[in-house]
Amino acid sequence: PVDLRSDTVTRPTPGMRRAMAEAEVGDDVYREDPTVRELEEQAAALLGHEAALFVPSGTMGNFCALRAGAPVGTEVVADTDAHIVTYELGGLAALGGVQTRTLSGLADTLDPADIAAQLRAFPVAHNYNMVRTSVLAVENTRARAGGRVWPLERLDRLRLITEDAGVVLHCDGARLWNAAVALDVPPRRLGEIFGTLSVCLSKGLGAPVGSLVVGGAEHVERAREWRKRLGGGMRQAGVLAAAGLYALRHHLDRLADDHRHAAALAATLADAAPRRVHPERTETNMVLVDVPDAAAFCAQAADGGVLVGLAGPTTIRIVTHLDADDTAIRRAGDVLAPLLNALPPAGS
Amino acid sequence: PVDLRSDTVTRPTPGMRRAMAEAEVGDDVYREDPTVRELEEQAAALLGHEAALFVPSGTMGNFCALRAGAPVGTEVVADTDAHIVTYELGGLAALGGVQTRTLSGLADTLDPADIAAQLRAFPVAHNYNMVRTSVLAVENTRARAGGRVWPLERLDRLRLITEDAGVVLHCDGARLWNAAVALDVPPRRLGEIFGTLSVCLSKGLGAPVGSLVVGGAEHVERAREWRKRLGGGMRQAGVLAAAGLYALRHHLDRLADDHRHAAALAATLADAAPRRVHPERTETNMVLVDVPDAAAFCAQAADGGVLVGLAGPTTIRIVTHLDADDTAIRRAGDVLAPLLNALPPAGS
Amino acid sequence: PVDLRSDTVTRPTPGMRRAMAEAEVGDDVYREDPTVRELEEQAAALLGHEAALFVPSGTMGNFCALRAGAPVGTEVVADTDAHIVTYELGGLAALGGVQTRTLSGLADTLDPADIAAQLRAFPVAHNYNMVRTSVLAVENTRARAGGRVWPLERLDRLRLITEDAGVVLHCDGARLWNAAVALDVPPRRLGEIFGTLSVCLSKGLGAPVGSLVVGGAEHVERAREWRKRLGGGMRQAGVLAAAGLYALRHHLDRLADDHRHAAALAATLADAAPRRVHPERTETNMVLVDVPDAAAFCAQAADGGVLVGLAGPTTIRIVTHLDADDTAIRRAGDVLAPLLNALPPAGS
Amino acid sequence: PVDLRSDTVTRPTPGMRRAMAEAEVGDDVYREDPTVRELEEQAAALLGHEAALFVPSGTMGNFCALRAGAPVGTEVVADTDAHIVTYELGGLAALGGVQTRTLSGLADTLDPADIAAQLRAFPVAHNYNMVRTSVLAVENTRARAGGRVWPLERLDRLRLITEDAGVVLHCDGARLWNAAVALDVPPRRLGEIFGTLSVCLSKGLGAPVGSLVVGGAEHVERAREWRKRLGGGMRQAGVLAAAGLYALRHHLDRLADDHRHAAALAATLADAAPRRVHPERTETNMVLVDVPDAAAFCAQAADGGVLVGLAGPTTIRIVTHLDADDTAIRRAGDVLAPLLNALPPAGS
Ligand SMILES: [Ca+2]
Ligand SMILES: [Ca+2]
Ligand SMILES: [Ca+2]
Ligand SMILES: [Ca+2]
Ligand SMILES: [Ca+2]
Ligand SMILES: [Ca+2]
Repeated sequence: PVDLRSDTVTRPTPGMRRAMAEAEVGDDVYREDPTVRELEEQAAALLGHEAALFVPSGTMGNFCALRAGAPVGTEVVADTDAHIVTYELGGLAALGGVQTRTLSGLADTLDPADIAAQLRAFPVAHNYNMVRTSVLAVENTRARAGGRVWPLERLDRLRLITEDAGVVLHCDGARLWNAAVALDVPPRRLGEIFGTLSVCLSKGLGAPVGSLVVGGAEHVERAREWRKRLGGGMRQAGVLAAAGLYALRHHLDRLADDHRHAAALAATLADAAPRRVHPERTETNMVLVDVPDAAAFCAQAADGGVLVGLAGPTTIRIVTHLDADDTAIRRAGDVLAPLLNALPPAGS
Repeated sequence: PVDLRSDTVTRPTPGMRRAMAEAEVGDDVYREDPTVRELEEQAAALLGHEAALFVPSGTMGNFCALRAGAPVGTEVVADTDAHIVTYELGGLAALGGVQTRTLSGLADTLDPADIAAQLRAFPVAHNYNMVRTSVLAVENTRARAGGRVWPLERLDRLRLITEDAGVVLHCDGARLWNAAVALDVPPRRLGEIFGTLSVCLSKGLGAPVGSLVVGGAEHVERAREWRKRLGGGMRQAGVLAAAGLYALRHHLDRLADDHRHAAALAATLADAAPRRVHPERTETNMVLVDVPDAAAFCAQAADGGVLVGLAGPTTIRIVTHLDADDTAIRRAGDVLAPLLNALPPAGS
Repeated sequence: PVDLRSDTVTRPTPGMRRAMAEAEVGDDVYREDPTVRELEEQAAALLGHEAALFVPSGTMGNFCALRAGAPVGTEVVADTDAHIVTYELGGLAALGGVQTRTLSGLADTLDPADIAAQLRAFPVAHNYNMVRTSVLAVENTRARAGGRVWPLERLDRLRLITEDAGVVLHCDGARLWNAAVALDVPPRRLGEIFGTLSVCLSKGLGAPVGSLVVGGAEHVERAREWRKRLGGGMRQAGVLAAAGLYALRHHLDRLADDHRHAAALAATLADAAPRRVHPERTETNMVLVDVPDAAAFCAQAADGGVLVGLAGPTTIRIVTHLDADDTAIRRAGDVLAPLLNALPPAGS
Repeated sequence: PVDLRSDTVTRPTPGMRRAMAEAEVGDDVYREDPTVRELEEQAAALLGHEAALFVPSGTMGNFCALRAGAPVGTEVVADTDAHIVTYELGGLAALGGVQTRTLSGLADTLDPADIAAQLRAFPVAHNYNMVRTSVLAVENTRARAGGRVWPLERLDRLRLITEDAGVVLHCDGARLWNAAVALDVPPRRLGEIFGTLSVCLSKGLGAPVGSLVVGGAEHVERAREWRKRLGGGMRQAGVLAAAGLYALRHHLDRLADDHRHAAALAATLADAAPRRVHPERTETNMVLVDVPDAAAFCAQAADGGVLVGLAGPTTIRIVTHLDADDTAIRRAGDVLAPLLNALPPAGS
């Protein structure tokens, strides 16, 4: 089947497998794996930071980065729809003792001044006996918004606001690479805005496993301690890091293909079901579709040989990636368009 | 001075002290304090529930009640301005491992259907791999909104929504008594809406110390275990419970006086500074006032012999209570009105 | 009945109740309760420390003091039988994220050099990648050992060992007063040995509610933040503090009576059942008795009008206190001796 | 250099790399990686259990297995020297809210009846208000004891004791394979004793990354939820699992070589420094050596081209493994023996 459930499903390419098989390795818990070190150095440089740390997943990357900046009993302010409060099983609170307070419209409708007013930093927090805000976390691209990209100037503005408030600005950059490609800026332009980032190698970039915490040397050192505590320290992790290095070298620019595919698919599906698909919202590699019953639609699509993702009771998500070429995308359109067309008109 | 910083500042009256001095006591950790038991039974009955548990503070009451309904790794949905995410030092996450996800406008602007859509209960949460919502928490009256009261029909609606979703509806009822008096309904009418409540004896009711967790017998039993773990089990607590019983008997109806005082003060101050005070928002015993510099205004008022509270960098809060009689309230108006009048016009 | 289950069952005396009824109070969350402040100052001075903090229970006192010295992910080393790992529902881990590692024989059989070897402080802990030991906690008197007292020179030795290792030495001093009386030293002699202490007012001293965290100003300030997070901040807590002050003034020296009573009872019972009671182990106000079935023995004793405590499946605990005078103690002996005498000989 | 610091330093062999390069993979977070599933099924079968779960490290394996059996506020009883309380950064408490209570001599000197008496299960724990013991954890082989093996009959006895007490018996089996080889029993004989196990592929077995939680289906399902929360869910983890499968097929029996090497080295070193090395304690692949200054000795050995590990201020640890053949072991003896011989006699 054509599997468009997520860009996580990509399998390592032959070239990537070769890189893994030939990787020079050492014991990374002793900081002696040369391939892991190379990956960490490259990622730090690419994003304009001092240091990076290889971790097994984006969930662990977010946790270690956030917890390195957020002491117990402080709060992380994030979007109500953020991945970190939706899909990470409450780890920030459950494992880290850190509160989340969420705002709707962080990425778009909220006035930056109102965001600033929500950050409770010292000495104000102390005077009013409030929980102190330690981190403001944004997600770029925004998964639950269908891969939408934060406007650069809005991020720059948040940088100033958080600096002013003494609050760390963190980026859940699981798909930061897609944002950079969509904005046509080098990753460094985005990376430098933030105090800490978590970025993934296993989504659009196509590596089998791995994410990175990126930031200042002290932050990353604290993240390393948390990684060990979580059990994320891996021994000869160079076999995985080699795939990550390969992905950064070979799969970054090609994300533009995924974006082109997603746009094409959005256009095709919008033709078939105008009010169910909004092509102008497809800014990177995702298409969201409103359907009456998402689970039923998924099953129908699967019968037709196309796997799509559930994003809510009445929302399906289609994600383009490395393993879905022009032919696969066309086939997906051929299967999904008639299914959508057969649905009752939306909003009726 | 006239102390209107909060209704927590009230001191026990002579009658209340007498009740405390004469209280029959036992070891409440062994469940043998007759006065504590009487208070718990009365409170449960008053609010239409099976059981209640005496705790030293509203913060502990909220924690024990919420944690009894919210397993580690689940989430409590609450208002962005809720006391539990603002003034309780992140305890739900820090001590309880429970995530908070906050919505703006829970009490007013949000459409109930949108609230329902935010509750992620099983099996939906499981299918989409989301954090499960275990509790929806409302605060009544709403401290940071200046003591505003939830509309009864909105609460009734949330009851249905949460029942449907298999989510506990909790009330932070630090000032539930004020809500009942303002709505002119018996406390039971409010109490029965919720699965669990935390109510305070030490605010408008004037007891020196104490709050109660109220709910079903199993919930309260779990809360009791958390109380012990937190160190909230007290030995001869009957000396405090006696004050609580006295307060429920003698100080409940008189909250109407506090509301009358607050309304009068709001009117006086609105006369002096029309756009800084909004009398129609004073529904119970609080008046919020917008000022250019809250800390400076507090200091000026204190010089004049009136203590008011800081609620934010440009907001002061005035709270009426048992220890502020007609004379005190008049004096407060006499001091504050000219100070407000001397400020530059608001919004200019 | 004569209630010798614990010294927590004492009820406030008429003089103590009068002190409570007349206490001057304020809002202690604002640090404005003069009676609480007086109690905190007196307790700090009495134990030779800078500061103290009133809390509702010994469990909370231990938690706040320990957590003030033990960051998340560090460990507290304590006795395998310590109250903090036996009777506090795992709060140090559950609420505080702090590991406990326990040693047997901390108070007696372990060589001090072996204790020193177990403390994993920086830089050693770091080099070997070990959990860092932040606190060594001792309990004095030792509840599960039947109220036994630590030898002064052994404590002095631990003081040097922990100083050397950069580890805080904490005392769970629920019954520190009994230790001081038994050793015939001023409480300060014991207090000064430790970096932090938790001491109780509600056990031998007879106050209805309350304990104190005692230590350096910074430690106590951190403890205050944890108290608030736990919900241990109480408003007009002076009504309780007044009882504590009264207890410190009037009930400290009389602990010698309790010790005399316990010794007398131990002798009586040892006469009746030589190998079941060990009078030489009764150093303060407790007597432990080995019986074939502790629950059954408790029930029999209760039928005879004497309540004793369960300390294990085959151990009962008898505790003397303020509310048990000479007559009560004689009656307890009259009831318990024949019951013990009727048991099969121990160790047969 | 000959690297004998730990058996974690082994690098994947050419055959193992080939298996990794050719591994069939899928998205394991969706449970669709066929190689991971095959590894999990084989490991479960090999150890006589229903299910297994692949995790990135032994630390995560222990956490997920233990937390699956230990609710917040309960305790895990373990050896004072256990890896889980020494080298896992306090994760069980810090991340899991679970208390550890440790006993000395769990593996040897403690009488099993005394161990049984330390397990506080319901209803006893409830009656006496104690923390409930949920898990008893043993480590086999015991890392800090120099790789010593638990006697089978002692483990069988603990199985009965824990069943009786309603307590889960867990095995930290980072080197369980070594224990099975040393005892000359199939792994299943050891596996079936326990309720849950964590076993490592990356130590003696020579895989680059990976451990497994093994146990009943429900336990493993709970462990899976914790793995996700910790961020241990990896996407195309089959590239790692392939190494694990290869290791189970090809490197299990050869552990006997490591044991032979360790015994030979222990004998050589004991000849050189009789009281510093105890060959009879080398039961598997480790040799512990007492030296006056472990860090200095490590440095000297490294100068000679042999890396050994620090196990304490005066203890070094030598570990044999896959990458150290007969020649390497001889060379290690040739370098270390004279160094030891040059030290002052031990115990003088
Ligand atoms: Ca992938
Ligand atoms: Ca470009
Ligand atoms: Ca009050
Ligand atoms: Ca009425
Ligand atoms: Ca008492
Ligand atoms: Ca290895």
